[in-house]
Amino acid sequence: MTRVLSKDASKHAGKEIIFKGFIRLRRDHGKLIFLDVRDLFGVIQVVVNAKVSEAAYNLSKKLRPEDVVEIIGKVNKRPDNAVNKDLITGDIELEATDVKIISKAETLPFDMGGENLNLELPTLLDNRSLALRHPQVSAIFKIQETIADTFRNVLKEKNFTEIFVPTIVPLATEGGAEVFEVKYYDKKAFLAQSPQLYKQIMVSVFEKVFTIAHAYRAEPSVTTRHLSEYVSLDAEIGFINSWEELMDLSEEIVKKIIASVKEKNKEELKLFKVKLFDIKNPFPRITLKKAQDIIFERTKIDHRGEPDLNPGDEKEICNWAKEEYGSPFVFITHYPVEKRPFYTMPDPKDEKHTLSFDLLGIQEEWVTGGQRINDYDSLLENMKKWKIDPKSLEIYLQAFRYGMPKEGGFAMGIERITKDLLGLKNIREASLFPRDMERVDEKLSDIK
Amino acid sequence: MTRVLSKDASKHAGKEIIFKGFIRLRRDHGKLIFLDVRDLFGVIQVVVNAKVSEAAYNLSKKLRPEDVVEIIGKVNKRPDNAVNKDLITGDIELEATDVKIISKAETLPFDMGGENLNLELPTLLDNRSLALRHPQVSAIFKIQETIADTFRNVLKEKNFTEIFVPTIVPLATEGGAEVFEVKYYDKKAFLAQSPQLYKQIMVSVFEKVFTIAHAYRAEPSVTTRHLSEYVSLDAEIGFINSWEELMDLSEEIVKKIIASVKEKNKEELKLFKVKLFDIKNPFPRITLKKAQDIIFERTKIDHRGEPDLNPGDEKEICNWAKEEYGSPFVFITHYPVEKRPFYTMPDPKDEKHTLSFDLLGIQEEWVTGGQRINDYDSLLENMKKWKIDPKSLEIYLQAFRYGMPKEGGFAMGIERITKDLLGLKNIREASLFPRDMERVDEKLSDIK
Repeated sequence: MTRVLSKDASKHAGKEIIFKGFIRLRRDHGKLIFLDVRDLFGVIQVVVNAKVSEAAYNLSKKLRPEDVVEIIGKVNKRPDNAVNKDLITGDIELEATDVKIISKAETLPFDMGGENLNLELPTLLDNRSLALRHPQVSAIFKIQETIADTFRNVLKEKNFTEIFVPTIVPLATEGGAEVFEVKYYDKKAFLAQSPQLYKQIMVSVFEKVFTIAHAYRAEPSVTTRHLSEYVSLDAEIGFINSWEELMDLSEEIVKKIIASVKEKNKEELKLFKVKLFDIKNPFPRITLKKAQDIIFERTKIDHRGEPDLNPGDEKEICNWAKEEYGSPFVFITHYPVEKRPFYTMPDPKDEKHTLSFDLLGIQEEWVTGGQRINDYDSLLENMKKWKIDPKSLEIYLQAFRYGMPKEGGFAMGIERITKDLLGLKNIREASLFPRDMERVDEKLSDIK
Repeated sequence: MTRVLSKDASKHAGKEIIFKGFIRLRRDHGKLIFLDVRDLFGVIQVVVNAKVSEAAYNLSKKLRPEDVVEIIGKVNKRPDNAVNKDLITGDIELEATDVKIISKAETLPFDMGGENLNLELPTLLDNRSLALRHPQVSAIFKIQETIADTFRNVLKEKNFTEIFVPTIVPLATEGGAEVFEVKYYDKKAFLAQSPQLYKQIMVSVFEKVFTIAHAYRAEPSVTTRHLSEYVSLDAEIGFINSWEELMDLSEEIVKKIIASVKEKNKEELKLFKVKLFDIKNPFPRITLKKAQDIIFERTKIDHRGEPDLNPGDEKEICNWAKEEYGSPFVFITHYPVEKRPFYTMPDPKDEKHTLSFDLLGIQEEWVTGGQRINDYDSLLENMKKWKIDPKSLEIYLQAFRYGMPKEGGFAMGIERITKDLLGLKNIREASLFPRDMERVDEKLSDIK
């Protein structure tokens, strides 16, 4: 007999099967014990009846949550009034004839049997490997998988090439001090703040490329929206006619991500209290200046002339987009030159602003992108302004020295999208093993 | 008029189109200039005739390889005797009526027009961004994409979950000093030598998982088969019945990778002198001890009792597998305990050897894998033997403390597979931007 999985169990109604999984719950009712046992597809209800097997009953009395078990039993159809519609296996139960323990679990430090874990973040992270098994927690990462798949599938259909680019880099490229240093043999190197420069180089090779890359930010503060290591979904496109195409493509991807999660993760979404928005309308696109005017009109708070939106501004402009355009997303464009990296294309009609955009959604940034400077001399000149030594970026500059089409691209952090889609409070919940300034699995303060 | 791509050009025969791309070659024949122009799908032949357009002709005279151009021209069917069967566009040519330069290239440091680049490795790497545009070089990475896709697709079909695990880790876990140190805020952390411990943890969550992860080895020597940063295709499977299933699955993946490359990369494979082997036979599986006996019999070189095969041994045993079993691959099993990491399951019939395997192919290691210790107490005991402080691996141990099925997995380096499939001489050719002890884009010796 080979193992039958929960999703296939009802096909075996009336027959004996082997079922393997983890104990989720045990409920004792006199000479009956009910076990909820989970495998990779879901939970099955097992009935252990002392009258059917005394041995199985005696062993089951000692079972604890997270014990790994092998159960031989008969699949019984439940009577109509006992069907549990919330479970994919809700129309059957397994009557155990034999129960074996494959691996014994110690007593859990908290209850894993409820719908929610309801743990404070430090407890959640101290017990990360255990907590991840909770169905509501693991569901986060099934949804995250759909997000990555959708990004990849949309771009593969459009003939983008997937590339793998290095994370050890010779230079902090996105500016700022927020970079991790690596002891690289007897020299210094850094962890890439983004795959930006490499994906740009690869435009001259494959024209349209994407990468799912780890990116690193030595954020010196603890916030609910930053991680020290995150997964960046990055795309870059050559031979664009207009930088607006970049917004078109990001909009398409975001809409398809939401549609795919709705379609492919119905079971997982049930575990969250969120209703995923229906997005029919195009996302409005407004300049930063216009956004600041609107915020001033609505709130009388005057941030006109500021180089960026603060979190309060972002919320306000998202509210505006929802009210005025029925869109939970809004593109903010034309950020000032000094707020964007050295490779950003200035607006030919207004040299102080750039052909750049952020897509704000659910009240924070989802996508950031823009057109890049593709002319070698302009790039060199801009690097001088930013005080970047051209020698240190020789490999990057090479790509522009030998012909580069008009190009641009964008990036989105997978954890932030996951967090926002599910209404999680903290981005750490959307990272399997989150890294921040307090923790690398262990608390840093515990490391000698 | 929108841009027409090379692969679609022949559908527009008789019509005027816009074509954009990079100049690959220019050949002057009196009042005719022939241009080979490449876009993301291939190369198209453009004829610039002074009689058709004097302006286009005069501009084209100045065109240089890698200039980015926009050409308006008429698609003409070639006469049968002029069809070039080596090109997907070989049945047409483009008669230019207008030529525009989008981006000008400087004079190239070497000829990019030949079938091969024929550069010494240091020149190839010093000019990496340019060299990657050569069709034979870029083909390597189209094939690499197929390898990653196939790995992913085979496992997705079998209900594996794709996971993203961190690369900044608290501890050097695979043993040895070959680990990079990261300055992590005011503490020390390391770059993961593999995603091993995290994929094992995730078996208790999703049962079957895979990840395409960056892995880091501070190899203190320069060889043709090691990189300091590489891409690891990693899978891990819970509820196995026997560790032989792990070999079955790796064998299936390797066979499918080769079949997919043959099918999907026909154009790219033409650029290489390799004939991809047909693999019908099962891969033989022999113990290390048996392999050493065979090598001794064949060569009279006595490595019996050594804990591992050296590169010469690997070649010899691969030759044996080919001669005896018609298989370019051979599994070597049961490595001694001291040659495998602390988490490796000892053979219950012979505690000095492990339920581990390497898949050798094309004369070097393609896959490494095995069953893991899933019992918490045995794992703790083993860590003691290896002098690993359990406190430092608390997050890992947690997964075993609360129930873990019998499990195992395997890993393969994508660059090594790419290199071997294409018969490349050096693994650096199979990494877009290779990192080694001499180079992080720049030569380390040039970094102050």
